Amino acid sequence: MEINLARLEEYKLNFSRTDEVHVVLGIDCLREIVSKISLLRLAPRTAIITNTTVSEHCLEPLMEALSAKGIASEPVIIPDGEEYKTFDTAQKIISFLAEKNFTKDTFIIALGGGVICDLAGFTASIYKRGLPLVLIPTSLLAMVDGAIGGKNAVNMPEAKNMIGTFYQPKLTAINVSYLQTLPLSQISYGTAETIKHALIADPAYFKFIDNNAESIKQKDLSTLQRLVRRSINIKKSFVTKDEFDVSTRKHLNLGHTFAHAMEAAGNYLRLHHGEAVGIGMIMALKASKHLELLKEDYSLQLKSLLIRMGLPILPPDEFTSQSLLEIIKADKKNDTSSYTLILPVEIGSTIIKSLSEEELIQVLDAALDI
Amino acid sequence: MEINLARLEEYKLNFSRTDEVHVVLGIDCLREIVSKISLLRLAPRTAIITNTTVSEHCLEPLMEALSAKGIASEPVIIPDGEEYKTFDTAQKIISFLAEKNFTKDTFIIALGGGVICDLAGFTASIYKRGLPLVLIPTSLLAMVDGAIGGKNAVNMPEAKNMIGTFYQPKLTAINVSYLQTLPLSQISYGTAETIKHALIADPAYFKFIDNNAESIKQKDLSTLQRLVRRSINIKKSFVTKDEFDVSTRKHLNLGHTFAHAMEAAGNYLRLHHGEAVGIGMIMALKASKHLELLKEDYSLQLKSLLIRMGLPILPPDEFTSQSLLEIIKADKKNDTSSYTLILPVEIGSTIIKSLSEEELIQVLDAALDI
Repeated sequence: MEINLARLEEYKLNFSRTDEVHVVLGIDCLREIVSKISLLRLAPRTAIITNTTVSEHCLEPLMEALSAKGIASEPVIIPDGEEYKTFDTAQKIISFLAEKNFTKDTFIIALGGGVICDLAGFTASIYKRGLPLVLIPTSLLAMVDGAIGGKNAVNMPEAKNMIGTFYQPKLTAINVSYLQTLPLSQISYGTAETIKHALIADPAYFKFIDNNAESIKQKDLSTLQRLVRRSINIKKSFVTKDEFDVSTRKHLNLGHTFAHAMEAAGNYLRLHHGEAVGIGMIMALKASKHLELLKEDYSLQLKSLLIRMGLPILPPDEFTSQSLLEIIKADKKNDTSSYTLILPVEIGSTIIKSLSEEELIQVLDAALDI
Repeated sequence: MEINLARLEEYKLNFSRTDEVHVVLGIDCLREIVSKISLLRLAPRTAIITNTTVSEHCLEPLMEALSAKGIASEPVIIPDGEEYKTFDTAQKIISFLAEKNFTKDTFIIALGGGVICDLAGFTASIYKRGLPLVLIPTSLLAMVDGAIGGKNAVNMPEAKNMIGTFYQPKLTAINVSYLQTLPLSQISYGTAETIKHALIADPAYFKFIDNNAESIKQKDLSTLQRLVRRSINIKKSFVTKDEFDVSTRKHLNLGHTFAHAMEAAGNYLRLHHGEAVGIGMIMALKASKHLELLKEDYSLQLKSLLIRMGLPILPPDEFTSQSLLEIIKADKKNDTSSYTLILPVEIGSTIIKSLSEEELIQVLDAALDI
């Protein structure tokens, strides 16, 4: 080598840290959750980030329970909807916190679904270099996915989820009873992610969901609790091994490359994320079959379960392999023209597969061929 | 306790990680620095965040050296000045990165002083949940302080440094030769922080700075290299033990509570940060004397050194203990009405002292009494 690196002095700084995240789960357990919060020994002042819909029934009981434990809270109520999950809304929340003189030793509570958990998580991670965070998810999707693992993101005008951080909450507190007020569609969307957990890690869990589809739809709390419990434990095993999503955690993306492409192609109006994930998993099965990686073709079982859950199984007609390819290319995460897909092997097992652009086109053709 | 916590299931997730930060230091070592960057094995595409002043002499040589190593770079040139260290500028940088399709495996280089290191660090930490970061500080203040330890912050209309993150760079690369083009005032401001390092950790280092004040002012590169080396190693020992600034790292705030209050009282125009830190350290000495915590009164030596470095030693007349108290109260980091000060004991030793509001008023009176 021509350059003499010996001319440089070198020092190394090592920064090691561990976050311990508590997850608690119960039925009709608001007071217990608030007791758990007070056991964290945070300062007695919090801002509750929530939305107009959730706040209607859930805000006042939470504020009262906090107050009974000596914790003062101020609500920050965002309009309901993905369109408010923006850098702009984050900026408004931060201005509110600043105006109300929230100092470094106050903390943030998220009370809501995925959008609220994302907004609150991102805001908590950057305001004054990080405030302690408590997530209280109120949707099934957030309970089994968004509130576990520490990822957050907000949208910029240029693209969705363009900015975000990895920021672990001190506590994720799940009151399964919140699910009883949700419309059935929301239960279905969340179930799509639980099916994904089963497909990547646990055949017995797939059987459980399959056997209990009716109870889930009827929002039987004990069944929902078992569902959330099992999904959290599967997600836990993937994210704690690979917090920053560079290896093992990627299995959780089963169906998601296709899902994200379809959501973007439909301008995020055509399909809900939960619907897109269901279709994406079917597409991943076809892709895996095409690449001769599939040991067990469980298409019929998966389709049957998705249908029973009220979820679509076919990609909308207007999506072509070319249109999806363009979106995947724009979204691709490296410059080396290789694409990473998570592909099913059998129920409970998936593999990470790297494809060239040419292979991806063929795979997309196969995946869209109904 | 009235609440039955046994009704809650509980799970714990542990996330452990270590960041290894390389710091390299040399004279006239741009090519060596770029070799070091290429040894990090990041992707061959980077955005260089810099400002109009620094870019004039330093940008092209860096881009050429990167290009010779096969690394494509795109400059993002910010106007020079603290007034651009804002959330708004960060948003513009992010829009640029998005527009130019910077993907997750590209990286960010900061080329500039503290403002640029802060802006680039914050942006790198939130864009796509974090891009790898290389800091190339060009001011003495950034070399000995801002580029070591992983703190960043940007201003909001409501307050300075309102948002930020702890985000470690992969590499901080210091070419001491950059200092030769700086105005003398910039060298003085940086030296104020090196004096602070000596006062909290190393009497021999204080003697070194005292003996070499003339060489420093003449920008003798070998002296500056020794200065930067020693300061980095002192700062390293404090920040690696306490990354998130909850204990040991606080010693680095010697003089800073007073400095921040004076900077704010003067609307950030009256005093440069380096000047305010110098005065703040004198005030801390008086405060320590008042509280009978001072073992060795080194006021004369410190004043003499600051004067020789062209730094002020007196707080501007218009600041009263009442006006500074109001600012410290607004900025205080807890709701328990206790205030934390770092106070000198002797050269090379400081203590962390907690004061009530009443004690703080008396201390401010003493600190302002010339």
